[in-house]
Amino acid sequence: MGSPAAEAIPAGTLSEIAADILREGATAAFDYGPTEGETVLRDALIAFQESSDPTDPIDPESLIVTSGGMQGLDLACKLFVDRGDLVAVESPTYTNGSATITSYEGELLEVPVDADGMVVAELVAQVQARGRAPRVIYTIPTFQNPSGTTLSLERRLELLELAAEWNAVVIEDDPYTLLRFSGDPLPSLERLAEGRVPVIGVRTFSKILAPGLRVGWVTATPEIIARMIDAKQGMDTCTNVPLQLVVAEFMRRGLLDSHLASLRTQYHERKVALQDALAHELGPFGARWTDPAGGFFLWATIPGVDSDALFSIALEQGVAFIPGSAFSASGHFNDALRLCFASTPIDRLYEGAKRLRRAVEIQLGEAQS
Amino acid sequence: MGSPAAEAIPAGTLSEIAADILREGATAAFDYGPTEGETVLRDALIAFQESSDPTDPIDPESLIVTSGGMQGLDLACKLFVDRGDLVAVESPTYTNGSATITSYEGELLEVPVDADGMVVAELVAQVQARGRAPRVIYTIPTFQNPSGTTLSLERRLELLELAAEWNAVVIEDDPYTLLRFSGDPLPSLERLAEGRVPVIGVRTFSKILAPGLRVGWVTATPEIIARMIDAKQGMDTCTNVPLQLVVAEFMRRGLLDSHLASLRTQYHERKVALQDALAHELGPFGARWTDPAGGFFLWATIPGVDSDALFSIALEQGVAFIPGSAFSASGHFNDALRLCFASTPIDRLYEGAKRLRRAVEIQLGEAQS
Repeated sequence: MGSPAAEAIPAGTLSEIAADILREGATAAFDYGPTEGETVLRDALIAFQESSDPTDPIDPESLIVTSGGMQGLDLACKLFVDRGDLVAVESPTYTNGSATITSYEGELLEVPVDADGMVVAELVAQVQARGRAPRVIYTIPTFQNPSGTTLSLERRLELLELAAEWNAVVIEDDPYTLLRFSGDPLPSLERLAEGRVPVIGVRTFSKILAPGLRVGWVTATPEIIARMIDAKQGMDTCTNVPLQLVVAEFMRRGLLDSHLASLRTQYHERKVALQDALAHELGPFGARWTDPAGGFFLWATIPGVDSDALFSIALEQGVAFIPGSAFSASGHFNDALRLCFASTPIDRLYEGAKRLRRAVEIQLGEAQS
Repeated sequence: MGSPAAEAIPAGTLSEIAADILREGATAAFDYGPTEGETVLRDALIAFQESSDPTDPIDPESLIVTSGGMQGLDLACKLFVDRGDLVAVESPTYTNGSATITSYEGELLEVPVDADGMVVAELVAQVQARGRAPRVIYTIPTFQNPSGTTLSLERRLELLELAAEWNAVVIEDDPYTLLRFSGDPLPSLERLAEGRVPVIGVRTFSKILAPGLRVGWVTATPEIIARMIDAKQGMDTCTNVPLQLVVAEFMRRGLLDSHLASLRTQYHERKVALQDALAHELGPFGARWTDPAGGFFLWATIPGVDSDALFSIALEQGVAFIPGSAFSASGHFNDALRLCFASTPIDRLYEGAKRLRRAVEIQLGEAQS
C-alpha cells in the first residue's frame, strides 16, 4: 500500500540507465563504496537541492546516503533513543517509525493530530502531566503518513521552541515533501531550526522514484552525520553501489524534475477523485476525511465502524485499506482507515469507494441486526 | 583491503545480466520486495546448497536474505546481545564484528587463536576465572579474518558442547568457506550442532561475487529467522531488489561454480606466492605467518616491530597492510600484520614483500640507532 503506482516507477528508464552505467562502470560499480555514499550521488543530491532552493544548500558534511528512509530512521533511533527515553510521536503515526523507536526501548508519547498536524499544545500538556520531557520528537510534518496532514508553520516554530527548551532531538521523517501538488511549500523543520536544535532530516527515493532501489539520504549536523557514518559501517557497510550510480545518473540527466512534476499532477488528480468518490459513497454515512496537499494518503473516519473487522469484509468486496489501529501503539482509531490514492488509477478509485461503501453497509447492517 | 581482487569481480557478466534482467523485469524489480528476500534468490541459494551438499539442505523457513554479511551480524547482535552480555570472540577478530557487539553494549571475552582456530580450552579457563559464561559465541571458524586459521573439527565439537552447556547462541560468521583452495572441507558449526544449539550462519556474496551488491544471507532456526525478518523490517525494509535478481540469475545460469573454481585457483597461487615472498624477505627477521587453506588473509608476526608505526613507513614504501592492533579491542598484536593475498597479482605480491622488508629494516634500524 505504501508503494508508488506501478506506472509511476520509471522502470524502463532506470533499466536503460543501469545498462548504460554498468557497461561503462566496470568493477568499481560492484566494489565496496564509501559508507557516506557514492560521490556522484552525493553531488547530485547537493546539486538538486541547490537548484530547488539556492538559499538552503546541503553541506557535504551534513549528508549521508542510506539504504532507504527506513535505515535513516533506524540510524537516528540507534543514536538517540535509549531504554526508557520518552519519544514524542504523532498519533496516528507511521507503524515502522514507532516500531523502530520501541525496538530501541523508547517510550512513546502519542500526540494527537488535527488538520494542522501534531497538536503541539497537547504535547505540552502531556509533558506537563508526566513531569518529563521527550528526548526525541519524531514527526512526519509534511503530508503525514497516515493522516495526510501537514504541520503548520506556526506549529513548526512552536515545536522547535519546545525542542530547544527540552534539549530534544527532532527526527523529521520527510518522504513526501517533493510530492506537493497544491498549496505553498513550507520550510522544513531542519531549515527553520537554523542549527539551534538538532534536526535529523530523513528522506528517500522510495516514494519519488522506486522503493526497490533502497536508496535514501539523511541530512543533519556534521557531528551527527559523522556518528551515523560510524553506525552505518556496522549496519551494512555501505548502500549498494550500482543503484546509487543509477539514481545519480537519473538525476544527472535532469530527469527527476519532470518525473516529479508528472507524479504531482497524477497524484493530485487521484486525490481529488478519491475525495469525490468518498463524498458520493461515504458522505451519507457521516464519514469525514483529511485533505492532503501532497503525498500518498488520506485518512478517513467513518462513525460507528470497526475498521479492523471492516478490513476482511472489504477484502471480500475486493478493496483494501489499512485499519486505523495499525497506526497507534495504544490501539486507537478503530473508526478510521488509511486510504492510499497515489497508487490507484482514477476509475479504480471510484470503484474502490463503491466497494468500501458496500463493506460499510454490510458491517453497519450486521451491527443493527 | 577486504575487497576481492578487481579482476575477480565478474563485472562484465553482472552488467550483462543486469541489462537482461531489468529489461525483462519491468516494475516489480524496482518495487518493494519481501523482507525475507526475493523468491528467485532464495530458491537459487537453496538449489546451490542442494547441489553442493545434498545431505545438508537449507529449509526455506531457515533462510533470510540480508544486505550483505554485515547486516547479518547486525541482526544477530540486535537479537541476542544486550547490555552487559558476555560475548566470546576470537582474538584477533574481525573489527566490524567486535564493533557491532560493543555497539549493543556486549562485553567482549577475547579468546586467543592458534593454528587450529579459537583455543577452546582458553575460553573455558576464562569463563571459570570470570565465573560467568558468555551468552553469545561469535566466531569466524573457517579461514578466519584476520588470522586465516580454521577451527579444527575437534574444537568445533567442543565449542558446541560448551554452547549447549552455557545455553549460548553461536554466531558463525562464514564469508570464506566457499573459497577453500586446499585441504578437506569441514562441516559448519550449524550443521554439527544438529539443532541442539542455536547457530546463526552469516554468509555473503561480498567475497565470492561482489561486495557492492550488498547481498548476503543468514540461516538459523525458523524461530530466529522469523525474529530477524521482523527486525530487518525496521532496518531497511528489504534488501535492494534489482541486485537480488542479478545474483539469482548469475546462479540460475550456473555461473557461480565455475567462478568459485577460478577464484580458488587464483587465491591459492597467490597465497603460495606471498608465503614464498615472505620467506625470502622476512624470514631473516624471524617473522612467522599462518598457512590458510582458503579465504583472503594471512597473519604475519615480526618480532620486535611496532606494526602501528610500521604502517606509515610501509605506506611511504608503497605497500599497505592492516596493523594487528586493529583486530583486538584490547590493543594486542602490535607485532602482527594482516596481509591480504587475494586481491593482489603475484608479481605485485613479491614486490610488496620487498617493500615491506624495507619498511621493517627502516623501523628496526631506527630502533637500534
